[in-house]
Amino acid sequence: MAETISRRHHVVVIGSGFGGLFAAKRLKRAGVDVTLISRTTHHLFQPLLYQVATGILSEGEIAPATREILRRRKNVRVLLGDVSAIDLARREVTSAAGEMTTVTPYDSLIVAAGATTSYFGHDEFATDAPGLKSIDDALDVRSRILSAFEFAELSADPKERDDWLTFAVIGAGPTGVEMAGQISELAHRTLAKDYRAIDPRKARILLVDAMDDVLGTFGTKLSAGAAKQLEHMGIVVWLNDKVVDVDDRSLTVEDKSGGRTRIPARTIVWAAGVKASSLATDLAEQSGAELDRGGRVKVLPDCTLPGHPEVFVIGDMMSLNDYPGVAQVAMQQGKYAADQIRRRLRRKADKKPFHYFDKGSMATISRFRAVANIGPLRFGGFVAWVLWLIIHVMYLVGFKNRVTTVLHWAVSFIGRGRAQRTTSFEQIARHRAEPVSRR
Amino acid sequence: MAETISRRHHVVVIGSGFGGLFAAKRLKRAGVDVTLISRTTHHLFQPLLYQVATGILSEGEIAPATREILRRRKNVRVLLGDVSAIDLARREVTSAAGEMTTVTPYDSLIVAAGATTSYFGHDEFATDAPGLKSIDDALDVRSRILSAFEFAELSADPKERDDWLTFAVIGAGPTGVEMAGQISELAHRTLAKDYRAIDPRKARILLVDAMDDVLGTFGTKLSAGAAKQLEHMGIVVWLNDKVVDVDDRSLTVEDKSGGRTRIPARTIVWAAGVKASSLATDLAEQSGAELDRGGRVKVLPDCTLPGHPEVFVIGDMMSLNDYPGVAQVAMQQGKYAADQIRRRLRRKADKKPFHYFDKGSMATISRFRAVANIGPLRFGGFVAWVLWLIIHVMYLVGFKNRVTTVLHWAVSFIGRGRAQRTTSFEQIARHRAEPVSRR
Repeated sequence: MAETISRRHHVVVIGSGFGGLFAAKRLKRAGVDVTLISRTTHHLFQPLLYQVATGILSEGEIAPATREILRRRKNVRVLLGDVSAIDLARREVTSAAGEMTTVTPYDSLIVAAGATTSYFGHDEFATDAPGLKSIDDALDVRSRILSAFEFAELSADPKERDDWLTFAVIGAGPTGVEMAGQISELAHRTLAKDYRAIDPRKARILLVDAMDDVLGTFGTKLSAGAAKQLEHMGIVVWLNDKVVDVDDRSLTVEDKSGGRTRIPARTIVWAAGVKASSLATDLAEQSGAELDRGGRVKVLPDCTLPGHPEVFVIGDMMSLNDYPGVAQVAMQQGKYAADQIRRRLRRKADKKPFHYFDKGSMATISRFRAVANIGPLRFGGFVAWVLWLIIHVMYLVGFKNRVTTVLHWAVSFIGRGRAQRTTSFEQIARHRAEPVSRR
Repeated sequence: MAETISRRHHVVVIGSGFGGLFAAKRLKRAGVDVTLISRTTHHLFQPLLYQVATGILSEGEIAPATREILRRRKNVRVLLGDVSAIDLARREVTSAAGEMTTVTPYDSLIVAAGATTSYFGHDEFATDAPGLKSIDDALDVRSRILSAFEFAELSADPKERDDWLTFAVIGAGPTGVEMAGQISELAHRTLAKDYRAIDPRKARILLVDAMDDVLGTFGTKLSAGAAKQLEHMGIVVWLNDKVVDVDDRSLTVEDKSGGRTRIPARTIVWAAGVKASSLATDLAEQSGAELDRGGRVKVLPDCTLPGHPEVFVIGDMMSLNDYPGVAQVAMQQGKYAADQIRRRLRRKADKKPFHYFDKGSMATISRFRAVANIGPLRFGGFVAWVLWLIIHVMYLVGFKNRVTTVLHWAVSFIGRGRAQRTTSFEQIARHRAEPVSRR
C-alpha cells in the first residue's frame, strides 16, 4: 500500500505476542509513530492455551483483539500481515495479507515474531501430533480429544476402543504437564458419566519425554513431586524415551539403550519443542548474526542485531545469556527496546545491557496443585496453585476489564463442567484422514 | 458396530436439535431404550447463532454437549453419526462417522434431522455467501466479517476499501434482521475507534429481500417499524429485490421490473431460505409420502409417515398444517411423538392429532429493541426486548445451570465490547480464495 510518510520517528513492531504488545504499549508519549504487524488479530495469552484445548475456556477469553487493547494509543496502527521480508539495508518490512502486499518503512524495528512448534527435523509428525502454539492449534487439539471419546463410544472392537482412549502428550515441560493433567480431569470428572459403552475414566494418558524428569527446570524435588502427582492422577509418565516416529494411530519411542516400543494411540499432542520464527534466519543472513541450535538470533547485550542498533530482536526469537523462552523475558525486552528508542530520540545515553529480572515461574499440575519457583523459594501444592490462579486472573483482568469473564473462568475451572465442548463433522474432517460425507 | 439387542422397545432419534432433544428427554421412565444419533456432539441453540457470528458469544455458550444434557438419562445413548440410510422395511438406521459405520435397528423412529441453507437451486452461491445454520457457519461468518475490516484498513484504494466495508445480508426474516443489526452494532460501537485508516462507522450494511417487507410474519405495522429502526441504524433495506448472482466481490439483484443492479460487497451472508435435510427425500421415496416445495415430508396429523405409524418425522423436516419452521413446533412435536410412543406401549388410545400451540414469536432488531407477536398482541420496542432477553436467558440457564455464563452474556450484549474477536490466517484461508503463506 502507499505509505503515509510520517515526519515522526517510525517504529515498526512485528508480532502481537508478549514482546511486541508490551513494546507497543510502552511507546506511549514517546513522540513516535508505531505500526504493529501481526499474523493474527489477537494477542494470545499462551500460558492458558491448554485450557482452550481442553474445553475450559473459549478462544476469545485468552485472545483479546490486539487493536482493542491498543485502541486508545492513537500513535499505534495495527496491521494484519504475514511478514515475508525484512530489508535491513532499505529499512523496510514487506508483509502480505490475502492478495494485499504492504511495504512499511521504519526508523526503528522491533522483531518479536516468536516461535513455532519444532519437530526436530520431523515436520511430517505435525499431521498426527499437532503442537500447541496458536488458537488454531488449540481448537484442533480440542476437536481431536473430544472426538476420540466419541469414536471410542462408537467402536465395537475392544482393541480399537482402547486405542481411541489412549492419549499421548509428548514433552514433559509445563505445557505437556498441564495438557496431560487436563486430559485426565476431562476423563475423570467432566466426561466420567457421559458415555454408555465406554468408561472415560479408563482413558490411558501417557506423558513422554526424552529427558529424565518432568518439569526439569523446577528442580529435583518438585520434579519428583510432580511426577508422583501425575501418576496419582492416572497419568503414565515415560521418561528417557525419545519419540522417533508418529502416525495416525501410534507413536514409537526409543529408550536410552536403543530399544524401540510402538504405542498405539489415536490422539497425540506435541509439546516437546519450539523453534524461532523463520524471520530469525532472514535476519541472521543479512546481518551476519549467529543462530543458536533453536534457530534463535544471537543478539547483542542491548537486544539489537549486530551492526544494526536500530533493529531489536526480542522474546522467543532471540538468544541472549541463556534466558528462557518465557513471557516475562519477552515482556521485559519489549519494554527495554521501547525505552532504548525513547532515550535515543531524547539524545540520552543508552541504557545498560538488558538484564532479565526473573519473577519466578509456575506450572499447574491439576486443580488445586501447582509448582512454583520464586527467587530462592521452590514450593508445590495448594498454596502454589492459589498463587498461580491469582497471577493469571490479574493478568486477564488487566487486559479485558471484564470481571464476569474471569468469574466465569474460575467457576469453569473449579467446577466439573466445561463450557466449550463443541466439535462437528466439519472440524473432525480437518484432522481425521477418513472421508466424511456431508448432508 | 455389533448391536446389543435390547429386549426393551428401542426408540432411535435422529438429530440433536430442538425436536430430537426434547423427544429424547421426554422418553424418561417410558420403559424404552433410546439411541440419539447426531452429526454434531452438541445441541445448538440456533436463535442465538447470529451472536456467535458477530463475536458476542462463544460457540460453547449456545451449544452445550448433547451427552452432557442427557447424562442422567441412563436409558439414552448418544452416538456421533451422519445418517446415510433409513431402511423402513428392515427398520434399521445406518450412520457413519469417520471410518466407522453403525447399523441401529429400531422399533420406533423419530426423524428430526432439521434443515440446511437453501440457495434455491444456486448451490454455487455457498462459497461466497455462507448461510447461518451451524456453529461452523457462524465461525466462518465471524472470521469473514472481522477480517473484512482488517482488509479495509490495509487497502490504499478507496474503491476497494469501500467494497471491504460493504456487508450484504440476504433475507429479511428474523435471522437476516438480527445479523444486519449486529453488524451495525459491531461497526458503530465495538469497532468504532479501533482503526486508523478507516472509520468502521462508515460501513455500508445492506439488507436485501425479494419480498416487500422485513419481518413479514410480524404484520404490516411492526414490519414498517422494524424497517424504520433498521434505517435509523444505518442499514440500507432493499426490498422487492431478488438476488440472482453472487461472487467473491459482489451480488447482483433483480427488481420486479427485471432491472438488474450489481452491488460490490466483499462480505455476504445468506439468510434467505432453508430446505429440509435430504433424509426427507429418502423417507418420501420409500413411503410414497409427498414432499412440499421446501423438500419437507408431508406427514399425517399424528406426525407419522403414511403407512408407517412407527416413524415420526418432526420439526423443520416435516410439513403439516403450514406450521412454521420454528423451535417451538419442533419441541412440541418431539414431546408429542414421545408421548405417543409411551401411550402405545401402555396400550392406551392414540393421542389426538398434533396441534401446535403458538406461544408467540419474537425477533430482536438491536440492543433494547425487539418485536413480539404473542397471541392477539403485537408490539415492539423496549418492552418486547426485555421479554426477549428474559425468555432467552431462561432457556440458556435451563440447559447449562451456569449463572456466570448468562451474566457474562448479558454484560457482553449490553456493553460495547465483544469477547470473541479472534481470527487468524488459517481461518481466513478457509474462506478467502487468495493464497496465504504460512510461517
